[in-house]
Amino acid sequence: MIVKTLKWVGGVDGCLEIIDQRKLPGEYKIIRCSNVKQLYDAIKTLAVRGAPAIGVAGGYGAVLSLQSVSANASPKQVLTVLKRDCEYLASSRPTAVNLRWAIDRVVKCAEKNTRETIYELRKAVLKEANVLCREDVEMCRKIGANGARFIKNGMGVLTHCNAGALATAGQGTAVSVLYEAKKRGKKFRVYVDETRPLLQGSRLTAWELKRAKIDTTVICDNMAAALMRDGRINLVITGADRIAANGDAANKTGTYGLSVLAKAHKIPFYIAAPSSTFDLKTKTGKDIPIEQRSADEIRFIGGVSPSTWFDSAHHRSLRTGTKKIVPDGVDIYNPAFDVTPAENITAIITERGVIEKPNAKKIKSHHEDTKNTKNF
Amino acid sequence: MIVKTLKWVGGVDGCLEIIDQRKLPGEYKIIRCSNVKQLYDAIKTLAVRGAPAIGVAGGYGAVLSLQSVSANASPKQVLTVLKRDCEYLASSRPTAVNLRWAIDRVVKCAEKNTRETIYELRKAVLKEANVLCREDVEMCRKIGANGARFIKNGMGVLTHCNAGALATAGQGTAVSVLYEAKKRGKKFRVYVDETRPLLQGSRLTAWELKRAKIDTTVICDNMAAALMRDGRINLVITGADRIAANGDAANKTGTYGLSVLAKAHKIPFYIAAPSSTFDLKTKTGKDIPIEQRSADEIRFIGGVSPSTWFDSAHHRSLRTGTKKIVPDGVDIYNPAFDVTPAENITAIITERGVIEKPNAKKIKSHHEDTKNTKNF
Repeated sequence: MIVKTLKWVGGVDGCLEIIDQRKLPGEYKIIRCSNVKQLYDAIKTLAVRGAPAIGVAGGYGAVLSLQSVSANASPKQVLTVLKRDCEYLASSRPTAVNLRWAIDRVVKCAEKNTRETIYELRKAVLKEANVLCREDVEMCRKIGANGARFIKNGMGVLTHCNAGALATAGQGTAVSVLYEAKKRGKKFRVYVDETRPLLQGSRLTAWELKRAKIDTTVICDNMAAALMRDGRINLVITGADRIAANGDAANKTGTYGLSVLAKAHKIPFYIAAPSSTFDLKTKTGKDIPIEQRSADEIRFIGGVSPSTWFDSAHHRSLRTGTKKIVPDGVDIYNPAFDVTPAENITAIITERGVIEKPNAKKIKSHHEDTKNTKNF
Repeated sequence: MIVKTLKWVGGVDGCLEIIDQRKLPGEYKIIRCSNVKQLYDAIKTLAVRGAPAIGVAGGYGAVLSLQSVSANASPKQVLTVLKRDCEYLASSRPTAVNLRWAIDRVVKCAEKNTRETIYELRKAVLKEANVLCREDVEMCRKIGANGARFIKNGMGVLTHCNAGALATAGQGTAVSVLYEAKKRGKKFRVYVDETRPLLQGSRLTAWELKRAKIDTTVICDNMAAALMRDGRINLVITGADRIAANGDAANKTGTYGLSVLAKAHKIPFYIAAPSSTFDLKTKTGKDIPIEQRSADEIRFIGGVSPSTWFDSAHHRSLRTGTKKIVPDGVDIYNPAFDVTPAENITAIITERGVIEKPNAKKIKSHHEDTKNTKNF
């Protein structure tokens, strides 16, 4: 069974239910966001994460915002509250381009419906948020369908971080390819990198793959190379956070190294991501800014919620139960992403099709094309 | 100040004091091994670790074994007990060739002295163990001296796991090269891989480098590749646990991947190890047995002692304070070592000299030569 990361329950007066990913895999807990502040905290502390998932969550955030507006507020007052709340939500993850994009869409929808009653307006915005959610589900399914043919019987497939159902409203991006391959009856084993420091691979990807009854083996990040040489890994597939116009792809730290190792062992290396991940204004990978995160994510281990150690407001309480694994006074380097050059990527799989040996020309043509399932 | 990992205290009736590395960097604690079982446990649970250090510890283990023999035992009885205890000690870490080598030496010494009284025999064996220890100290210093010239001003040097003072009776092997370079006034920065799952890099190497006032940055294992591409890592140096006749070297899991990444980025990759690490009976890396360790080392994080989670006797108590980071029912693969092929190694640095572009012929000639500081 493929997990459902977020779900709106209860119509216009409803709330957003999300799986608390900070607690996985130890505890499976659903948290309810009934107002904008609760949703902001959930995104900020990575209870919900993954660019597509937080985009959809942001859309529903607009509905939560409108719930706080009194029934006799003027259209101007309504929009003021909505825009303030949406700016606040967008500030929770400033680098996530999908969140801003989703929020812009629901605000635009609200602006078009200000002549309606507050109740009708809320209905319209909820409808738009639901559309965003359904589009995301469909996008995931198509990425999976487009990539499934690359997964062959008997393969060992390596994935890094979590580009799965937990990162989207649907069944994921890179991991969707695996789900679709399984649906088509393919038998394979997935090797999941731990993905230090926040362990999204071992904590999240392994958890959702197990629920979907896919054979899964967790390894430490440093073990992939030896498995490649032993012939146990035959394909690598990851997601991406931003892809430059020339095909250079930023993804979770460690992805670049895997692409070099894959190349050295003549193993194909795929990126699966929605076409909204392309940022054609960014020429090459060199222009992608790399977010540096807190040293404490590496310095401490085993706490209540590794993904929130960086949050200074929660710092003290969240360190409870942690163990210091780097001595005081030693420097720590913690980039969140690295950039895989286009020449290391066998193909980029999107909901629109497959771009083999990606380059600027093919990506431009892919971006302009709206027909699905095509080779570029 | 360079740390001292182990020390025999108190003459023939004495015991072996070792730094409990399971507790570093949080706690600096000395433990005493007064019998063979205690020493076996200390080696098995990695309280003391590193091929040279456990070799020296194994030598002293023979003294502990002889302490258990009654004064009127026959020479045959003495040797039976000693050999049984030594086999037991050797079984604690099957990949480490030094342990076997050291044990063979003290057993041989005992065999030569069976005509003496038990007391004299114990004295002779302790003397031999002390010789082994002193040789190790001298070996470390010479490896450092032979390798120091490779470290240039301004370099970023990557090391993996702990091939430092904590892994030997002296000042280490790979890390000794760094200590000797510092003594010669070289300025450089050391990047230390965490080395999952047991974090010997962040917990141990960073700790001893900081004590020695060497600039140190800890990174996650998956970050090395991006640092290489950025030009921040200019040289890689690691230890080895066993080197086959053709130069293939077994070392901590993750070393092979670094050698591939170094090659792809045209960065020199050095192995520093005592010449006793060569196992000429092992033809190539394919013949080196790879120790598989417990899945729990990866499944649990942040406990009292990560390196002892696998020890079923201690299982319950040692899991206190740990956090499960891999879901139940998911497979885990945890090889302790991997093999770096000779063609990925720029040079092997030993106490006898430097073997550039190692191959079977050069290693044979290095092995037969007894003169120091030579290029092969």
